[in-house]
Amino acid sequence: MTPVDFWFDFASTYSYPAVMRIEALAAEHNITVRWHAFLLGPIFKAQGWQDSPFNLFTAKGNYMWRDIERVCERYALPYFRPSRFPQNGILAARIACWYGDAKWLNRFVMAVFQANFVQDKNIADPEVVSQILSELDLDAEAIIAQAQSPESKAKLQAVNQQAVRQGIFGAPFFMVGQEPFWGQDNLALALQTAGQQ
Amino acid sequence: MTPVDFWFDFASTYSYPAVMRIEALAAEHNITVRWHAFLLGPIFKAQGWQDSPFNLFTAKGNYMWRDIERVCERYALPYFRPSRFPQNGILAARIACWYGDAKWLNRFVMAVFQANFVQDKNIADPEVVSQILSELDLDAEAIIAQAQSPESKAKLQAVNQQAVRQGIFGAPFFMVGQEPFWGQDNLALALQTAGQQ
Repeated sequence: MTPVDFWFDFASTYSYPAVMRIEALAAEHNITVRWHAFLLGPIFKAQGWQDSPFNLFTAKGNYMWRDIERVCERYALPYFRPSRFPQNGILAARIACWYGDAKWLNRFVMAVFQANFVQDKNIADPEVVSQILSELDLDAEAIIAQAQSPESKAKLQAVNQQAVRQGIFGAPFFMVGQEPFWGQDNLALALQTAGQQ
Repeated sequence: MTPVDFWFDFASTYSYPAVMRIEALAAEHNITVRWHAFLLGPIFKAQGWQDSPFNLFTAKGNYMWRDIERVCERYALPYFRPSRFPQNGILAARIACWYGDAKWLNRFVMAVFQANFVQDKNIADPEVVSQILSELDLDAEAIIAQAQSPESKAKLQAVNQQAVRQGIFGAPFFMVGQEPFWGQDNLALALQTAGQQ
């Protein structure tokens, strides 16, 4: 049984269904999920894109907005098209990265994704993030201060470089050992592969 | 029961498994497939790409080459990574476009895809295309001459404009009425949707 390394970006539409579904599906097969927040922005910039490809390429964007609605309906996930896209998920990513081993990590990540894709909140706003942490009975002030420290910023940058070295170019992305799986529609296949190894 | 409009590009790796599988799957549900050859090249050029995104973006290309191998294995399809990518599929596309209503169309398309992705032949070579047509007991010389006529070129251009108007930006692409489905991994869902309408 190999663990699944699960890479997601807080701004990424297709990461939302994967974030909401992965733990329940993995539990069915006793598979461990290792969560990795990262930032697609710098990866897109490195290939010359100053914005999400869904904004740069209209037809692709139009398709994605129809498709994500349909995907969420299929999995009975609440969904509201966010009024800002992509959102700035740096603060949330720094928290998820610095506290990558915390027990509350996946609950925090799910709550931020719901803030983005259900409640249409501004996840770049420290107030919004603070409220999410408080609702998880955590010390929001201390966590946000730590996330904004130089060592936290450096850690997220290092994780992003690790993503690039592993050939990760989009989200969600799953690694099962050396085997890469891109896209929320590959979640079941990634878990199946992990279960067989 | 709605027919499925199936859009493919002869150079497109992910079109290959869809081309080989669609008729058998559609037959199980009594669904009619309407085949539409088109060219991704001009669509990519219009968004500033002078080559396939799989060549322009290395990480994405590396992933695709691993994934297509895995997809073909899953479906027990023979596969050999072509030595040229993307191939020039204009001649084949003009034939498939001009003879879009011919009974032999899907057999021709499948044979060209096998030439590209199994036999590693140069599908831009009229000799290769001629041999495929001859093996289908067709008048290769007449068909190739017709495909190279101005009206045939104009027809393919018109079909490409139709693809763009419908929001098609990649291949394979399936339209079920107004409902769009992108990617070979959406084939089953597209057919299921067609069966329910």
